[in-house]
Amino acid sequence: MSQKLMEEFKKELMDIYYLSSAISVLHWDQEVSMPQKGNELRAKIIGSLAGELHNKFTSADFSKSLLALKKKLDSGKLNDEESCIVREVWREFSREKKLPLDFVKELAETTSRSQLIWAQAREKNDFKLFLPQLKKIIDLKRKEAELVGFKGSPYNALLDIFEPYTNVEEIEMVFSELKSFLIPFLAKIKKSKVKANRSVLKGDFPIEKQIELNKFIASKIGFDFEAGKLDVSTHPFSTGFHPQDVRMTTRYKKDDLFYAISSTIHETGHSLYEQGIPIENFGSPMGESISHGIHESQSRLWENILGKSEDFWQYFYPILQKRFPKHFGKIKLSDFYKAINIVSPSLIRTEADEVTYNLHIILRFEIEKDLIEGSIAAEDLPKIWNDKFKEYFGIKVSSDKSGVLQDVHWSGGMIGYFPTYTLGNLYAAQFYASAKRDILNLEKEIRKGQFGHILAWLRKNIHIHGKLFSADVLAEKVTGEKLASKYFIEYIEKKYSKIYNI
Amino acid sequence: MSQKLMEEFKKELMDIYYLSSAISVLHWDQEVSMPQKGNELRAKIIGSLAGELHNKFTSADFSKSLLALKKKLDSGKLNDEESCIVREVWREFSREKKLPLDFVKELAETTSRSQLIWAQAREKNDFKLFLPQLKKIIDLKRKEAELVGFKGSPYNALLDIFEPYTNVEEIEMVFSELKSFLIPFLAKIKKSKVKANRSVLKGDFPIEKQIELNKFIASKIGFDFEAGKLDVSTHPFSTGFHPQDVRMTTRYKKDDLFYAISSTIHETGHSLYEQGIPIENFGSPMGESISHGIHESQSRLWENILGKSEDFWQYFYPILQKRFPKHFGKIKLSDFYKAINIVSPSLIRTEADEVTYNLHIILRFEIEKDLIEGSIAAEDLPKIWNDKFKEYFGIKVSSDKSGVLQDVHWSGGMIGYFPTYTLGNLYAAQFYASAKRDILNLEKEIRKGQFGHILAWLRKNIHIHGKLFSADVLAEKVTGEKLASKYFIEYIEKKYSKIYNI
Repeated sequence: MSQKLMEEFKKELMDIYYLSSAISVLHWDQEVSMPQKGNELRAKIIGSLAGELHNKFTSADFSKSLLALKKKLDSGKLNDEESCIVREVWREFSREKKLPLDFVKELAETTSRSQLIWAQAREKNDFKLFLPQLKKIIDLKRKEAELVGFKGSPYNALLDIFEPYTNVEEIEMVFSELKSFLIPFLAKIKKSKVKANRSVLKGDFPIEKQIELNKFIASKIGFDFEAGKLDVSTHPFSTGFHPQDVRMTTRYKKDDLFYAISSTIHETGHSLYEQGIPIENFGSPMGESISHGIHESQSRLWENILGKSEDFWQYFYPILQKRFPKHFGKIKLSDFYKAINIVSPSLIRTEADEVTYNLHIILRFEIEKDLIEGSIAAEDLPKIWNDKFKEYFGIKVSSDKSGVLQDVHWSGGMIGYFPTYTLGNLYAAQFYASAKRDILNLEKEIRKGQFGHILAWLRKNIHIHGKLFSADVLAEKVTGEKLASKYFIEYIEKKYSKIYNI
Repeated sequence: MSQKLMEEFKKELMDIYYLSSAISVLHWDQEVSMPQKGNELRAKIIGSLAGELHNKFTSADFSKSLLALKKKLDSGKLNDEESCIVREVWREFSREKKLPLDFVKELAETTSRSQLIWAQAREKNDFKLFLPQLKKIIDLKRKEAELVGFKGSPYNALLDIFEPYTNVEEIEMVFSELKSFLIPFLAKIKKSKVKANRSVLKGDFPIEKQIELNKFIASKIGFDFEAGKLDVSTHPFSTGFHPQDVRMTTRYKKDDLFYAISSTIHETGHSLYEQGIPIENFGSPMGESISHGIHESQSRLWENILGKSEDFWQYFYPILQKRFPKHFGKIKLSDFYKAINIVSPSLIRTEADEVTYNLHIILRFEIEKDLIEGSIAAEDLPKIWNDKFKEYFGIKVSSDKSGVLQDVHWSGGMIGYFPTYTLGNLYAAQFYASAKRDILNLEKEIRKGQFGHILAWLRKNIHIHGKLFSADVLAEKVTGEKLASKYFIEYIEKKYSKIYNI
């Protein structure tokens, strides 16, 4: 009977995943394909489907099956996989049940509509154009926190969406360790006499040829183009409708080859995770990624630890030289390597180097936490942003466009998302340290352009499990210890001490 | 109270339209963007959403509101717009309600499965491979006719899906008029000494430059690229998610410039209709196109009557010459005009000229009607097809691949669709005759590349009404008479007598 109950439940769950997958297609299309005027009705369509999803998820039939299974879970009658499914669906369900349908629709519509307004505000460098939408979103997110409930900070209720099983206190602990390393280390770099030359990356690179190259790199490191696509959008992102249809985007600059490459490798890291989840697990938490932090660990591992390493470019740089001989023919690998790893505090997060990147995140985390806790007001954001930026980076912000308006997250309602970027960096370094212990001659393989071993390791240790383990449990299982900032700190210290001769 | 009831009903209806619009996005993405491996799960996702749609449409709540409004309609208590909404929703609802869920599923599954088998049978030129599927489909469609009920021929029940408010008798009348003109007229053309040279259209035209040109033409004749897109797919099609997001596709041949252009203009005709429906009417039959025949009248008017006219190319041909000077620099407009209007009976419908096209349709209409009425058997189709083809076109069919197996419609269960192509041609000519009476110097405007007047006329007379009028009522309202074949016959006779010096 338990078997039958589980089968029934999985069927009901499957329809929920189908609908959720359809909504992802609508979002992807909105970013990549949709003509401008389609925005208003698309927002309503997404809002309506989100409402539908909520209705299905909280329907009487579904609740009944779930409650019965929850009892079995609590009395220890389920196996590991079943436990994962019931535990994780229950988590989401308990949250959803607390959100009234009108609220869900309003949030989905508001955030979908805000995307375009934010983009316009950023283009026009006009924070006030975005402000009313932002205020609405903050109000809605604070209301969400109240509705679902929380311990400690209301921000915990939002964090929970993107990084379950963690909280503000834990994040503040690792972030403060990081901050106390980063700020003095950055000061040392600033004092270093080594000056890398970023201009070696600047040139004239036809977009068509860049697209080819980016697809080549993505494919070479493991992306399956029969089960996915690489398109163009203003803000690169990846989304998996299911493991056999994974969409990612990048963006190109004609005069800067590496601008696209680093985004592409980043998104490929995400996509390899999505493509690595077993298709037969689609339709339940067993077929879902663990958390945004773990997701980000995959993109960061590929983008930075591998994609900005000497080993990686020992293989790819000759290919780059062959494809763009006029430009790179006379530039040495060592100069290229230094150029792609220049440390230089700058305004735009997505263009930040590995050392300063996490300071961008810490700044945003502090701000959005304060917004949700109500200790600062949205009106004051530009000033608060600019003051903090001066303090952490020693730079004056030139315009809101390059300051408080630069990120898509708040307009999309993704408050609580930012910390996952830094968690991703930490997990990435911690995982990679383990992979190096497990894989014989890993770095030698990378130098030969062999990415099969590291990808297989990530698949086996992370991708295939779906949500079987939570992030903290996985970290311990794979690396032998809980999330720790030391691996990232060691990695940064070693790499950049060498580059900057510290 | 009536007001409130209507408002409530419109809200429920809106969610149905949202869902239906989302399904269209999934279909479009499947044709245009989706990677290969995504197919299997995409089919399931669409299936699940289609089931959802059926459930919403036949739900108890929805039925209750609709029944109450139907009573008001019957007692004449609704205004014109309300009447349109209730009348048309009732039409669809009464049909849906008569189809048991098991039947709907079986039909969907059978036709979905048949697509691949038909494609294989066509590739292998093996009718017998397709026969069992075709028989199943015919049985199911005959059963559908029985379930929904009909007067006269059971074919009327199928026609009703694509061209409501018409019937076999009306169609046979106009089609027989057409046939008695077309067959002797074709014989005259065959005897003509004028020989146009199609080879002037053949050359080397880079796809990138073709894409630009096609977008230019679509935009010039009125397509709003802020409210739509032009993409590439194997079989050109258009679909409107709503009037502010209309997607169309075309396909390119490197050696044949006109191959893409005619498809693009055709699809632009469809899209101008979709973009011309008032956005504020989205979410009810007031915001939907009238019928497939009327839709086709829009594509045919632009593709043929305008897009293959001398006036049209007096404006566009110099542009073509400027963009492809090597090729068209020395070719005269009159030779180009003759080449795009060559009449030549041939096996494939989609490549047929304006004169023979409708004979293809009449042949298919006669066959599928007989199949549904049971007067012929599916086993005998190749022989019946080939005999008829010899009779109408004077050509021997070389293989089933280029004969009875060429079209996708039967395998997709779209029996009753074919006649709408010819109805579209007839309506197009009839509408255009009226437009010429109404618009001062229309042809002069066209020669100057001014398409605003004809588009405004189509908008005002056809597009903005949605389903307010049925096709027959609209024809009378706009042209002063019922559907008549004489306008098309006059148009063809005049144009081709001149070209072929008859």
